[in-house]
Amino acid sequence: MSINIVKPSILPGFMELTPSNQILFNKMMDTIRRNYEKFGFLPIDTPLIEKSEVLLAKGGGETEKQIYKVVKGDADMSLRFDLTVPLARYVAQHYSELSFPYRRYHIGKVYRGERNQKGRFREFYQADIDIIGNGNLDIINDAEIPSVIYSTFKDLGFDSFTIRINNRKVLSGFFASLGIDDSTNVLRSVDKLEKIGIDKVKAEIKEFGISDENIDKILDFISIRGTNDETIEKLKALNIQNEKFLEGLDELDKVVHYIRIFGVPEKNFALDLTIARGLDYYTGTVYETKLNDYPSIGSVCSGGRYDDLATYYTSQKLPGVGISIGLTRLFYQLTEAEIIKSSDYSLTEVMVIPMEGYMDYAIEASRNLRDAGIFTQVYFEGGKLGKKFNYADKLNIPYVILIGQEEAEQRKYSFRDMKSGEQKNLTFDEVIKCLR
Amino acid sequence: MSINIVKPSILPGFMELTPSNQILFNKMMDTIRRNYEKFGFLPIDTPLIEKSEVLLAKGGGETEKQIYKVVKGDADMSLRFDLTVPLARYVAQHYSELSFPYRRYHIGKVYRGERNQKGRFREFYQADIDIIGNGNLDIINDAEIPSVIYSTFKDLGFDSFTIRINNRKVLSGFFASLGIDDSTNVLRSVDKLEKIGIDKVKAEIKEFGISDENIDKILDFISIRGTNDETIEKLKALNIQNEKFLEGLDELDKVVHYIRIFGVPEKNFALDLTIARGLDYYTGTVYETKLNDYPSIGSVCSGGRYDDLATYYTSQKLPGVGISIGLTRLFYQLTEAEIIKSSDYSLTEVMVIPMEGYMDYAIEASRNLRDAGIFTQVYFEGGKLGKKFNYADKLNIPYVILIGQEEAEQRKYSFRDMKSGEQKNLTFDEVIKCLR
Repeated sequence: MSINIVKPSILPGFMELTPSNQILFNKMMDTIRRNYEKFGFLPIDTPLIEKSEVLLAKGGGETEKQIYKVVKGDADMSLRFDLTVPLARYVAQHYSELSFPYRRYHIGKVYRGERNQKGRFREFYQADIDIIGNGNLDIINDAEIPSVIYSTFKDLGFDSFTIRINNRKVLSGFFASLGIDDSTNVLRSVDKLEKIGIDKVKAEIKEFGISDENIDKILDFISIRGTNDETIEKLKALNIQNEKFLEGLDELDKVVHYIRIFGVPEKNFALDLTIARGLDYYTGTVYETKLNDYPSIGSVCSGGRYDDLATYYTSQKLPGVGISIGLTRLFYQLTEAEIIKSSDYSLTEVMVIPMEGYMDYAIEASRNLRDAGIFTQVYFEGGKLGKKFNYADKLNIPYVILIGQEEAEQRKYSFRDMKSGEQKNLTFDEVIKCLR
Repeated sequence: MSINIVKPSILPGFMELTPSNQILFNKMMDTIRRNYEKFGFLPIDTPLIEKSEVLLAKGGGETEKQIYKVVKGDADMSLRFDLTVPLARYVAQHYSELSFPYRRYHIGKVYRGERNQKGRFREFYQADIDIIGNGNLDIINDAEIPSVIYSTFKDLGFDSFTIRINNRKVLSGFFASLGIDDSTNVLRSVDKLEKIGIDKVKAEIKEFGISDENIDKILDFISIRGTNDETIEKLKALNIQNEKFLEGLDELDKVVHYIRIFGVPEKNFALDLTIARGLDYYTGTVYETKLNDYPSIGSVCSGGRYDDLATYYTSQKLPGVGISIGLTRLFYQLTEAEIIKSSDYSLTEVMVIPMEGYMDYAIEASRNLRDAGIFTQVYFEGGKLGKKFNYADKLNIPYVILIGQEEAEQRKYSFRDMKSGEQKNLTFDEVIKCLR
C-alpha cells in the first residue's frame, strides 16, 4: 500500500513549543495559577465553543471581524475571543449557585483572527482573575488586585516592574469640570502619550475643538508626576469641585492606602494619570504593568474596575474588578529577548541506565526513586553508553544512575552529576539525600 | 439605554462545572499529570485548530462525519478530534528536534460532533501518554505503561481495578493458524463477548462462514481463564506453530515478567484474550482498565502498541505504545455514581473576617498566612457576621480567623474550625501549626 504523505505543519499565527520550552511555559502557567489560588480565586473552565448570539451579544466592532466561526450541523457557533464574555455568561447563568463576592481565575486559550504578524498570535492563553460583587463590591478589592500582580510577577522571577494605576472617574470628572462631556476622543489621545509624545497629543486634542486654555490644563494634568503621595496631594490641590472627580480621587486615595497594607513596595506601583485603558468597559480603577528593564514589551498585565459585568445576559447588577495576563505573547517576548531560557529546565530528575542484564535492578531502583517523590525515567533501549548519556544530556536531565554487576551486588548506585561529570558510588539513602 | 438580554446558556453536549466541582476536576487532572511526569513523560500543547488536510490525512469513516470545521478566511481548518493525530503530526514535524524514545503526555480538549446523549460529550478532555521509538522500541515499554496506569489510579483513590492485557499478534496468529486470514470481523464479534454473551458471539461468527470445528476452537481460546501464569501456560500448551502467534506470546510473557518488576500487584492486572481494541491501529499489546466495583462504567483507560505512528506525515518508521484516559467522561460517571463528591473540597484554607475598623490587621494577617504558604481570602465586604460565616461555609473553606479589637491588641487570632464550630484564641505560630 502506498500512502500519500501530507506535509506536517500547523497554521500560521499558532504557537507550538518543543518539549523544553513547553516545560518552561507550563512552569510560568503553574506559577500564575498558584498565585491566583493563594488569594482565594476559584477555577472555572468554560467551553471553547459558544453560541454566536451569546459571544457576540454586545456586537459590533473589531471583535466580530476577528471571530472564528465553527461549523457542524445548523447551530451558529464561534470560538471565544476572550475570557470576560464567557465569565459574564457564566455568572449570569449560574448566578444562584455562586457565592458573592465571586472570585474566579481562568487560564485558557482564546482565538482572534488577527492580521498575521510576528509576535501576534491567533490562538493564545489568557490568565485572568476577576472579583464579582452582587450589587456592590468594596474598593479594597481594587487594592488587592495589585498585590496579586506583585506576588505573581515576583514569583515569575521579576523584581523591577511597575504597576501603573489610575482611576477613570478622576479622568472623566476632570474633563467634565472643563466642560468636556464626551472625553472618549481626548482619552484615546492621552492614552497614546508614551507612543507619540506630548506635541502630537496636543495637536490631536486641538482637532477635537478644545480651547487652548483647556488644552493647557489637560497637559498640566497628565504631566502630574511625583511619588504616589505627591500625586494624590497635587490632585487634591487642583481643587476640582466635580462629584465624579472627587469620588475617583477618594477611591485612588483608598487604593493607595490599602495597596501598602497588602505589602506592595512603593517602587512597584505608581499612580499614572495617563493610563486610560479599554474605553467603553472600565469605570473606575485601571491598571497596567510594565517591566522596567524591557519597556518595549508594553503592558504585561492590565485590567480594571467595571460597573456591570453581565449587562447583556442578566438584569442583576454585577460590578467587578479584574486583570488579564496575555501569557502566550508574554512567553514569546520573554524568550525572544532571551530574558528566560529553556535550556536549564527538566521535569525528570534522574535517568536510570542499566548495563546489559541488569534491567530488573534498574526498574526496581526507579520504583524506589519514584516512591521517594523523584521523577525518574529508565532507559530501556539497547545501544552504547555514550548514546544514552547523550540522551539524558539533550533532555537536560541533571542526574544519571548507572546500574551494573557491581551496583547490583553491593546494592549501591553509580550516581553521576551530568553537569560536572562527577560520579559517586552511593547507597540509596545517599542518592535521595543528594537529590534533596 | 435599553439592552436586549440574551439568555445565558451553553451548547448541548458541553460540560461546564460549578466551582467546587471544577476544583475536584482539576485535582484529578493534576493527579494524572503528576503521575505522567513522575515517569519521565514530557508535556506538549498543540493548537486546537489544525489544517483539515493534516487532521484528516488518514481520511474516511466516522471521524470525518464528527468533525467540527472552523471558518475564518479561506483556510480549510478543523478542531482536533483526538490527541493522537496531532502527536503524529508533531513528531513528524519536529523529528529532528526530538530525542527518541520520545515520551510525551498531553492533557487537552478534543471535539467530536457525536449524537446528543446523556454522558456523551462533544468537547472533552483526553489525558494521553505515548512513548515513540525511532525505528524500534523495546517491549519493556509495553510493561511500563500498566505501571503508570496503576500508579495513576491508585493516586486517584482507587484500589480495586484491573488492567486487562492482550496482544494482537496472539489473536491474529491464532486465527491465521486456523486458516482465517482476515480476522477483523471475528475479532469485532469477540470484542463484544462481555456485552452480548457467548451464544450470540457464536452465532455471529458462524455467519462469517467459519467451520464448526474452528468455532469451537475459537470459543475454547477466548474462554481461557486463570492466573496470569496459568494463561501463559495454557497458551503455550496450545502448541500453535504460527510465527506471529509465537512472537505475540513471547511479548506477552515478557510484559507479564516486567509488569511484576514494575511493582503492579497481581490483583491489578489480568491477561484477557477477549480484549481486541481499535482494530486497524494497534499491532501488539493492548490494554483496557476497569473499575471492578463499577463494571458499567466500562474501560477508564485504554491503549496499546502500534507499529507506525506517523505513516501519513513521514516515511520514518515510528513505533509506539500509549494509553488515553477520557477524563471528562470519567469525571461525569464518577460524580453521577457519587463515587466522588465535591462537597469536601476547597482550595482556600482560611478566610479572614475583620470586625469593623480592623481591616488593616486582617490584611496583614492574610499576608503573613500567604507567606507561610496558606491559601487565604479576606472578606472585604460589609454585613452581618452570620452572612460571612455562611459564605465561608458555602465555599467549604475549613477555617475562619476573626480579627477585632481584642485580637488586634493581643496579637492573637480567633481561629474557628468551620466543621466542628470550635473556636480558639491562638498566636500566629499556633495557627500555622494547626493548619499543617
